[in-house]
Amino acid sequence: MLPFERVTVIGLGLIGSSIARAVRAEMPTVRVTGFDRDPDVRTRSEELGFCHDIADSAGAGVTDADLVILCVPVGAMASVAAEIADDLPPEAILSDVGSSKTTVIENLRKALPNAIIVPGHPVAGTEHSGPDAGFATLFKGRWCILTPPDGAPEQAVFRMKSFWQALGANVEIMEPRHHDLVLAVTSHVPHLIAYTIVGTASDLEDVTRSEVIKYSAGGFRDFTRIAASDPTMWRDVFLNNKDAVLEILQRLTEDLAAMQRAIRWGDGDTLFEVFSRTRAIRRGIIEQGQDDALPDFGRKH
Amino acid sequence: MLPFERVTVIGLGLIGSSIARAVRAEMPTVRVTGFDRDPDVRTRSEELGFCHDIADSAGAGVTDADLVILCVPVGAMASVAAEIADDLPPEAILSDVGSSKTTVIENLRKALPNAIIVPGHPVAGTEHSGPDAGFATLFKGRWCILTPPDGAPEQAVFRMKSFWQALGANVEIMEPRHHDLVLAVTSHVPHLIAYTIVGTASDLEDVTRSEVIKYSAGGFRDFTRIAASDPTMWRDVFLNNKDAVLEILQRLTEDLAAMQRAIRWGDGDTLFEVFSRTRAIRRGIIEQGQDDALPDFGRKH
Repeated sequence: MLPFERVTVIGLGLIGSSIARAVRAEMPTVRVTGFDRDPDVRTRSEELGFCHDIADSAGAGVTDADLVILCVPVGAMASVAAEIADDLPPEAILSDVGSSKTTVIENLRKALPNAIIVPGHPVAGTEHSGPDAGFATLFKGRWCILTPPDGAPEQAVFRMKSFWQALGANVEIMEPRHHDLVLAVTSHVPHLIAYTIVGTASDLEDVTRSEVIKYSAGGFRDFTRIAASDPTMWRDVFLNNKDAVLEILQRLTEDLAAMQRAIRWGDGDTLFEVFSRTRAIRRGIIEQGQDDALPDFGRKH
Repeated sequence: MLPFERVTVIGLGLIGSSIARAVRAEMPTVRVTGFDRDPDVRTRSEELGFCHDIADSAGAGVTDADLVILCVPVGAMASVAAEIADDLPPEAILSDVGSSKTTVIENLRKALPNAIIVPGHPVAGTEHSGPDAGFATLFKGRWCILTPPDGAPEQAVFRMKSFWQALGANVEIMEPRHHDLVLAVTSHVPHLIAYTIVGTASDLEDVTRSEVIKYSAGGFRDFTRIAASDPTMWRDVFLNNKDAVLEILQRLTEDLAAMQRAIRWGDGDTLFEVFSRTRAIRRGIIEQGQDDALPDFGRKH
């Protein structure tokens, strides 16, 4: 009772190649086809062997699929959808893994007005990119959010849910707009802050880059990990989730101004109060298995 | 040829108890005395046995020491220095591990005008606190910055350098004011940002705390680790390194405003440029052994 028989993954980076590997590991009878617009990635994926077939074009890759998952930067979804429009079987489900959903759904719908679309977003990843970075267990214990648009067939949503559960993920159904706000908080703004602070540090005149690197164990190095993520993917996320990101960023800026003021005026009580109540969230994250309890992320000492 | 024979550690939290453990491990003939103003911490430290003696008062702990290291929050340095003023042997070296140096040096000098003071700052730690959190290898491969004030005897600086090297640290000598600026970038502002963003996330009305926790693997959880650090210690750091923190925070705020503007106006090139050049710093940190290359901090998948 597998939800799909022939899965096509378009975009063979960290997430796409992890899906291919996970399908091979968890549903060995399912045929996995892959495509990437970069010929080097196609060649490398052939070598790595995580797909049964690597297609020569997006269209050729989808002709007999019953599930097509777009794993490309959210800014590229529209053009990929247009590329497969003539070849996508009408009964196939089209899904994606984009980190923002509202604009992606609009773009997919525009390019494929009659397709069965069930967008998804596995909240998982590492700072590494490309087909070598993927691994089959990436989604285990992580959440995958499905954001079916109004009128999506219930059966299609159910099959997508079964699919992600088979890969080890927990599945949640969410309104696209709410997804975009939640992810702005838990993913997009943290990435923007990390990128910005690493940029600020590398631009200083009075502190050398070598000093920033040497003394990064004081906290800074935690930010550099997510600031090493794929720039194209993240540029597209910010361009496609503008409203939610700006809303959260505005709140953060106000809160930061309040902290700045507390420091300037020596208001230790305000600082202490904020520094104390933030511990509860960390505890929740560990209790719910979304991070390890090991000190220092379990880094070796 | 050990640099010291009798080391006293005042403040038996993460750093103090790690120093005691590291001295026992690396210099087994050195006698280690400990003191903490919290009686529960003294009792627990006796049980853990990482000191030869736990003294009943700070003064009693230092009477025959040749090195005294203050491992208390930087806001408590002045009062601890006053407590030991009558008992500190004139030939003993007084050091500390505070994360800010300019105000600490002023306070120590005021309380102990004739003491030999060689302040230090091991750039190492975890988000955990207290005597149970310490371990002997915490300083291995990390940097310890010494900030001797003008006129500090060269021999005393040399002994402190040998001491930290014996615990596995690399040692750097720095001007106190420069130390405070470097650490504002690599440690203090990152902590402030992490605390602030976790606070912002927990205050939202439209996104529940449970959603923040569930989807934290998208990046947010990296920030919660350092936002779980000791609130008293960090309150004191910000109150005692005000100028440098405000300077760096101002620059960060400007850079963040530039990013916000790029998002609002759809300026993908600016975003891409910043997101691309931040990767070099991560590479430097890994190459210089200040972090692991393992994806996702080596978290298990």
